[in-house]
Amino acid sequence: MRLHNRMRRRGLAIGIDIGGTKVAAGLVDGNGRVLKQARRSTPGHDPREVEAVIVDLVRELSAEHHVWSVGIGAAGWMDLAGSTVLFSPHLAWRNEPLRENLERLLRRRVFLVNDADGAAWAEYRFGAGAGESRLVCVTLGTGIGGAMVLDGRLERGRFGVAGEFGHQIIMPGGHRCECGNRGCWEQYASGNALGREARELAAANSPVAQELLRAVDGNTDAVTGAVVTRLALEGDAASIELLDEVGQWLGLGLANLAAALDPGMFVIGGGLSDAGDLLLEPARRSFARNLTGRGFRPAARMERAAMGPAAGMIGAADLSRIATRR
Amino acid sequence: MRLHNRMRRRGLAIGIDIGGTKVAAGLVDGNGRVLKQARRSTPGHDPREVEAVIVDLVRELSAEHHVWSVGIGAAGWMDLAGSTVLFSPHLAWRNEPLRENLERLLRRRVFLVNDADGAAWAEYRFGAGAGESRLVCVTLGTGIGGAMVLDGRLERGRFGVAGEFGHQIIMPGGHRCECGNRGCWEQYASGNALGREARELAAANSPVAQELLRAVDGNTDAVTGAVVTRLALEGDAASIELLDEVGQWLGLGLANLAAALDPGMFVIGGGLSDAGDLLLEPARRSFARNLTGRGFRPAARMERAAMGPAAGMIGAADLSRIATRR
Repeated sequence: MRLHNRMRRRGLAIGIDIGGTKVAAGLVDGNGRVLKQARRSTPGHDPREVEAVIVDLVRELSAEHHVWSVGIGAAGWMDLAGSTVLFSPHLAWRNEPLRENLERLLRRRVFLVNDADGAAWAEYRFGAGAGESRLVCVTLGTGIGGAMVLDGRLERGRFGVAGEFGHQIIMPGGHRCECGNRGCWEQYASGNALGREARELAAANSPVAQELLRAVDGNTDAVTGAVVTRLALEGDAASIELLDEVGQWLGLGLANLAAALDPGMFVIGGGLSDAGDLLLEPARRSFARNLTGRGFRPAARMERAAMGPAAGMIGAADLSRIATRR
Repeated sequence: MRLHNRMRRRGLAIGIDIGGTKVAAGLVDGNGRVLKQARRSTPGHDPREVEAVIVDLVRELSAEHHVWSVGIGAAGWMDLAGSTVLFSPHLAWRNEPLRENLERLLRRRVFLVNDADGAAWAEYRFGAGAGESRLVCVTLGTGIGGAMVLDGRLERGRFGVAGEFGHQIIMPGGHRCECGNRGCWEQYASGNALGREARELAAANSPVAQELLRAVDGNTDAVTGAVVTRLALEGDAASIELLDEVGQWLGLGLANLAAALDPGMFVIGGGLSDAGDLLLEPARRSFARNLTGRGFRPAARMERAAMGPAAGMIGAADLSRIATRR
């Protein structure tokens, strides 16, 4: 009985999700349930200040519980050992030995996790992908986050930077991407892409854009992907068309990934996936139309993510528990 | 000593490479060396006739040797168990239970292998990729064959049809592909693509195409990728330019694969790779220019395949030995 209790306590881990504006933390049990949460604002760019916020959150969540490990999820590239942030777009970290710093401050086991990897792992372990051995996750936000579980293992590549599906070039010479290239998939199938297309439609002052313009009081700059999604769900025809186009690009890129990776399932998450079938139905049609060898091969299912915005935190906690278990 | 001899004998396997025109067979030892070879013409489309040719080749090569297993490599999709040909473009096989048929005829262990998987495995075990845990192989022939070894394991996907890198769509609405889509990578970075571009140049009767036209006695239809490669190696400026363009497309597609898969190495094989650095140097430049996150991440090496045209046969033999070992 004592052993059983110790095992149960050992099962608790803290997941931290460092976003551009918020740092969210959760106390997560071995079944992926969040028992307690806390959050702070992201304190600027200084790694020391971010570390201090993490320490504060861990103290708060571990005050009444034994915590086995802490998983830190963030946008960016972590080394394969889960020790160093090689590069983080929001935090301006370069080769930052975050794990060592935090283990010294927290006196606990720490593991660093790319945010998309964390979310994919949570979907694989507890969410939409449970039971599927080969899973590709795509998170549609301002850009496209990607990660994959192959044969029950998070596949991170040779250097830990695999899964940048959003930066497959599908339109040479196309729209400029934040990564410095042109024609990246995320410029066609993300929330930002939806917003850009909608602003262009609104600026053209087309009669089909009247609901869009009304929603932002004529201020075309205020049109975002979220606005379009809301209007589409309310039935606005132009917004439904805009989502349809983005969904078609989504399906084309997923067909490319299926040609290369042949997963059993695609899990689609992120803010843009709130559009539901208004996005996923055109994506499924386009996927079926663009999949090479269609008709002669089985094809991956396409499902919405099930774990919600806490997926990254839950996955980071779970991965930290597994990675630090001896 | 007897045991040692038996182990050594057990190390011999036969690899069969079923091509569109020839069926090649080799007796392969545990170090990937081909001890003996034989070949026949591919006998039309009837699976029974192809089986008879395989039986004939195996009898010939196993007359004086103990052979542990037979690996059958062919273009096409094999099921994950290595038992059934789901689809083969050249052989018109559909859900053909080739393994069962051949095990009955040969009274030996048989394993079916996709030809690109076989070649990649040979490069990983004995060739250019030895020592690299994460390897993407690209075979540039009439189309693009693809396969990957991840973490020392041949990654074949959920349904066994992964690695169709040549059918990533990189130019929506672009050149028609044999797979039925438009804009597939292999329409831009294969031997066929090189031939098509060269024929178009020759047909335009441009003064820069004079060497090309001379090489085919003015018959533009006779211009192939192989002709262009030969002229380029002899110094013809137009042919060098044509290879440079194809190399740039090659680099772009590899950058897409690196974004998704982050391998340690790309191994480039197939007939078009005979062009050597005339193809690979522009490919390396284009890869370096199109790789997302360049400057903030390590990047895969790009090397020519080392195993030659026997790679598929050697890999099929080796995989059959591993897969049928209990």
